[in-house]
Amino acid sequence: MRNVGVTLSLFLGANSLSVVMYANTTNDAYKPKTHVLKANSETVRWGNIGKGDPALTVHSGDIVTVEAITHHSGDDYERMIKGDAGVEDIFHWIEGEKNEALRGPGVHIMTGPIAVEGAEPGDVLEVKILDMKLRPNGNDQYAGKTYGVNAAANWGYLYGDMVEEPKKREVVTIYEMDTEGGTDYATAVYNYKWSAQTDPDGQVHPTIDYPGVIVDHNTIDKNFDVLKGVKIPVRLHFGTMGVAPKEADVVDSVPPSYNGGNVDDWRITEGATMYYPVSVAGALLSIGDPHAGQGDSEINGTAIETSVTGDIQVILHKKASLNNKLKGLNFPLLENENEWVVHGFSYANYLEELGASAQTDIFKNSSIDKAMKDAAHKTKDFLMAGMELSEDEAYSLMSVSADFGITQVVDGNWGVHALIDKGQFGDSERKPVVLRSSFENFGAKVGWQPATKTVTLSYNGNVLEMKVGATTGIYNGETVKLAAPISVVNGKIVVSEYFVNFYKAKLAKTE
Amino acid sequence: MRNVGVTLSLFLGANSLSVVMYANTTNDAYKPKTHVLKANSETVRWGNIGKGDPALTVHSGDIVTVEAITHHSGDDYERMIKGDAGVEDIFHWIEGEKNEALRGPGVHIMTGPIAVEGAEPGDVLEVKILDMKLRPNGNDQYAGKTYGVNAAANWGYLYGDMVEEPKKREVVTIYEMDTEGGTDYATAVYNYKWSAQTDPDGQVHPTIDYPGVIVDHNTIDKNFDVLKGVKIPVRLHFGTMGVAPKEADVVDSVPPSYNGGNVDDWRITEGATMYYPVSVAGALLSIGDPHAGQGDSEINGTAIETSVTGDIQVILHKKASLNNKLKGLNFPLLENENEWVVHGFSYANYLEELGASAQTDIFKNSSIDKAMKDAAHKTKDFLMAGMELSEDEAYSLMSVSADFGITQVVDGNWGVHALIDKGQFGDSERKPVVLRSSFENFGAKVGWQPATKTVTLSYNGNVLEMKVGATTGIYNGETVKLAAPISVVNGKIVVSEYFVNFYKAKLAKTE
Repeated sequence: MRNVGVTLSLFLGANSLSVVMYANTTNDAYKPKTHVLKANSETVRWGNIGKGDPALTVHSGDIVTVEAITHHSGDDYERMIKGDAGVEDIFHWIEGEKNEALRGPGVHIMTGPIAVEGAEPGDVLEVKILDMKLRPNGNDQYAGKTYGVNAAANWGYLYGDMVEEPKKREVVTIYEMDTEGGTDYATAVYNYKWSAQTDPDGQVHPTIDYPGVIVDHNTIDKNFDVLKGVKIPVRLHFGTMGVAPKEADVVDSVPPSYNGGNVDDWRITEGATMYYPVSVAGALLSIGDPHAGQGDSEINGTAIETSVTGDIQVILHKKASLNNKLKGLNFPLLENENEWVVHGFSYANYLEELGASAQTDIFKNSSIDKAMKDAAHKTKDFLMAGMELSEDEAYSLMSVSADFGITQVVDGNWGVHALIDKGQFGDSERKPVVLRSSFENFGAKVGWQPATKTVTLSYNGNVLEMKVGATTGIYNGETVKLAAPISVVNGKIVVSEYFVNFYKAKLAKTE
Repeated sequence: MRNVGVTLSLFLGANSLSVVMYANTTNDAYKPKTHVLKANSETVRWGNIGKGDPALTVHSGDIVTVEAITHHSGDDYERMIKGDAGVEDIFHWIEGEKNEALRGPGVHIMTGPIAVEGAEPGDVLEVKILDMKLRPNGNDQYAGKTYGVNAAANWGYLYGDMVEEPKKREVVTIYEMDTEGGTDYATAVYNYKWSAQTDPDGQVHPTIDYPGVIVDHNTIDKNFDVLKGVKIPVRLHFGTMGVAPKEADVVDSVPPSYNGGNVDDWRITEGATMYYPVSVAGALLSIGDPHAGQGDSEINGTAIETSVTGDIQVILHKKASLNNKLKGLNFPLLENENEWVVHGFSYANYLEELGASAQTDIFKNSSIDKAMKDAAHKTKDFLMAGMELSEDEAYSLMSVSADFGITQVVDGNWGVHALIDKGQFGDSERKPVVLRSSFENFGAKVGWQPATKTVTLSYNGNVLEMKVGATTGIYNGETVKLAAPISVVNGKIVVSEYFVNFYKAKLAKTE
């Protein structure tokens, strides 16, 4: 197949729009392989995102349906473990028998690692998040619901700095999400103050210091009068996703770094694309710590911690062919339809900067001020290299339009992110392409119903319906939020190149 | 007039919606007075937001059309001063003759102060921003445009920390906005490196250290190859607005504090409401430092600094009648249709905390970490008092849904803000009311065209047209962004109480 890019200019009154049309000489199909990576005690590692034997090996372009399980499931065994074979397997721990006995220094249950054929240090790994779905709980008693945990934990930002007594308290709030009605909010069910828990080996845990301990509900007081009438918008995302760093073998899953990991940005959600610098052979991608809702800062130590199944596409960019945005990439970069997001940390590469004791020292050196300095430099560098701006142009632009936010203040290596609006760069960052030819190009069927102004994309047994101007579409019978509404320009449906690449991958998934 | 509030429940399938309908026994009119406060050398103070003789005195409920002028106008005399009588008057400075000779320690041109009749310490002053318009420049040569300045200044976050030489450079970028075509973006025109400027009194300014100096364009090199093709979204806002603090007489306009001032949050825009704690008799509201665009952090030291004319409504809330959100308010609080925004600073009240040398010491103690701590406590306190949550509920909710951002890192007393989504609280924070009765209640005429689903609100010679579902409306013939689209619920147009109060004031303005 040969793609021939032709740039047309469509004149619309005073506005002109450059549109790249792809003509293809043959309609050979786009057929990435779809893998399924279920979570169980064989396919997850607990607390470690370092090097290790792959749970799965894929080729660039492949799609993986990956199960991610929350490490907080033990806070309500009945609602979050019971009846779910995978979760039961991971959490299985009786005296003298513990499936996940091998622990890293961190807390998260990480599915993987996934090795990517041919990935080498200096390459960049792109991960598109094609789909995220709450994992229904396995207990018939709570059918149709998914539960999540928010723990105001000892590593929270205001721990000990409270008004009410005891100031040093940990409080677990259980949240509920509807997995059948398609509601997009979470409500609190009850909360309880953490009391000392004894694990199956007889060790007592006076604080939340070891995930996997099943809380004995006979030892706690449940308070059901919590956040009545409050409906928290669901923002499904992976709290922790990243490749293995080269600097250490076993790596704590808690502090994020240049390789990604526990970035805890709620924008790492369906429709987003992450780019990670590869520093070990195979890249070794780990995925975990799913969240149903989190604010920028994750102030009390956790989000709504829940279990999620995602579809991701993994694309390897070789060092020699990196574009200006990815060349020399030294941080986890996020892209979505509307934004680039730069992630800075107190230490850009804490394992290297803090040396042999980095994995303990990082928790003594947390600072938003340092993270802001890192984010500021990375943002300027990104605008200069990626958008080909002079230093003065980049610095002015970030002051007048980039929004800096506090990603998290609870993961040791604290985070500040910068949001860069793609729209301000016009066609250069949101390249308009004609929908029909773009999708037909890789073999999809494109239908159009003029009466309802609805486009139907069919490929590989998958069907996506989108109505002009609508913010949601229908994907295989289910309502989904669209990356962007589609619009008509001069008689043609025009979308962004990002949009095409995203839905191309989504449609390519096989069951 | 007596208002009788009746709460109805409208049942819509599984959902119910409580709607407060106002019945009024007489249609006596709502007639706040409209004042005009032009900016000239008599009505502005330069660099000081402290106590002082009022430029205007108003009653609670009054509307003020207030002109605000940027202190950066001297960076391009031809585009930003020439031909504008008010600006020329303020900037008039020849040897031995300087209209604004009396300067505070700060930099901003502040219009006011506006005294509010009956305002006393302990009260809260509400300021609704009803309208903001770019001030067209006065030079025929540049008709139909407004210009703005972004200065990468010596107080910028990366000053001296640059890649290119000289690292310690200040660069001024001139931006252009269209005031006729209604475009909502800014484009860069040219930039130049600041060179030493000599003021009319013979003093040399090697850096940007004294606003009001007219830059001699014979001494600079203009570079017109700047940010080509980049269109920056316009976010008109007042960078500096607030009441006089009680702790000092002359107060630097640069560091924001509990009384507001240079908060530099771009959300302080049309449609927003600010609440300030009053600490001196008359409140003494000052307004200035208008911006056409700024990112969260204002990283290089300035925004797109331009001149703007706004309509504000000033409402006094007496101490004895404050609701739970305003009782004990100790920071500038923002509300809009969708959010509450809490503002924290490195020092919540720097004048009190840092003592006699506060106005110099604050610049040595800037810290985002401190500002985050302040914002975290204020947000928890606000949720507890304002939403009647327990401490555990508030702390959990902020972790799972409040977004903390970096307001600015360039104003001495650095800022962190928290965005609290009103929608999550349902009707309690976004109280639905029936549009027709709410507007008829104060004497407005409400029209409805079924064919086009358009509501027309007429009052006082002002007309607002809104189509169901549309994000923009027509106000007196001009397209305006609506606070929210209107929607039909059970055959009635239902909007929020906030919406009604906002448009009620907007319609009440007289010419």
